[in-house]
Amino acid sequence: MNKNKKVSMAVIRRLPKYYRYLSELINKDIKRISSYELSKLTGFTASQIRQDFNNFGGFGQQGYGYNIEELYKQLKMIIGIDKPHSGIIIGAGNLGQSIANYKHFDETGFNIVAIFEKNPRLIGYKIREIPILDFYDIEEFCKDKDIGIAVITTPKQDAQAVADKVVSLGIESIWNFAPVDLKTPDNVVVESIHLSESLLALMFMLNNK
Amino acid sequence: MNKNKKVSMAVIRRLPKYYRYLSELINKDIKRISSYELSKLTGFTASQIRQDFNNFGGFGQQGYGYNIEELYKQLKMIIGIDKPHSGIIIGAGNLGQSIANYKHFDETGFNIVAIFEKNPRLIGYKIREIPILDFYDIEEFCKDKDIGIAVITTPKQDAQAVADKVVSLGIESIWNFAPVDLKTPDNVVVESIHLSESLLALMFMLNNK
Repeated sequence: MNKNKKVSMAVIRRLPKYYRYLSELINKDIKRISSYELSKLTGFTASQIRQDFNNFGGFGQQGYGYNIEELYKQLKMIIGIDKPHSGIIIGAGNLGQSIANYKHFDETGFNIVAIFEKNPRLIGYKIREIPILDFYDIEEFCKDKDIGIAVITTPKQDAQAVADKVVSLGIESIWNFAPVDLKTPDNVVVESIHLSESLLALMFMLNNK
Repeated sequence: MNKNKKVSMAVIRRLPKYYRYLSELINKDIKRISSYELSKLTGFTASQIRQDFNNFGGFGQQGYGYNIEELYKQLKMIIGIDKPHSGIIIGAGNLGQSIANYKHFDETGFNIVAIFEKNPRLIGYKIREIPILDFYDIEEFCKDKDIGIAVITTPKQDAQAVADKVVSLGIESIWNFAPVDLKTPDNVVVESIHLSESLLALMFMLNNK
């Protein structure tokens, strides 16, 4: 991929969908697919699909379509799934536990190594071999480890301070589940899942059909 | 709101954010705000904000700005938070339990009345007074109730069949957490949260900074 070319968020959102559909095709032992068939499958237009892949150098072949195995391998590299990513979760409440328990993340090379928590009643427990540690030990723990991703599942009021902390530890990406828009330096990427906002968007659609 | 006017998904995504920020302003006892100040707060441009609210009839006053209490009340009506919404969850795994436990939904009038599950080891338990019932009783349970929202937190392979079922029961909106793009009739609205896709988007951003 050309690192100087800025990829739009719309493309970034579609890449994981392509990845998911390609995994399914591979599981079905399908070898190749045209952009037209991929379009029917994903709901994106064929020209959109060709344009998306052109961002990363093409991969398709006129009259043949895409070699699924090859495209899948390339997509893995483009997204970065080919490398392992160590992650920590901050907040061992329901949501934090739920994410720690989510086995499917393993397939993406995302490896959660610890959960940090302030509540002494939770510290010391394990979730699927992942220890719940004292939040006050986070600096010591991360010192000699290459942690790429911090997952924030704390209450709203703690989220910004936790973000500041993980940024100070050199962690460069945050997966945020707290209902707050985090402020972080430009070198840190943040992806937020706002559950309440998603629910309200659904309510709006239901009430304004 | 003019029901004939199609509101774009981009606007629908911003409405819950306005709602969240206005709640915070109300908690701070602030009475009015200009579109410029709201812009600094939300990160959307002032003209974007004015345009969004114009979709629903304006609310602002030249030289005064927005009356926060009034705007908040109107937004509640527009989104539909002023009415209660009964919901059911299908899938009592970690994610389903996590959503059932999420207390903040109560504030939005979203009231989860039951969780349905196939696994006999989970049936009969309660989560915050919400019973886990046998999935095979879903039709009987929903018959005389006005269930507006079905939350799908089943494994991927069950999600489409569950969606078909809830649609057949007359439920018109689905909050989907399974990693699959559901096929539903046009009168049903679907909002999906794809956790793995969100994580992959974050990985992409981290690896392509």
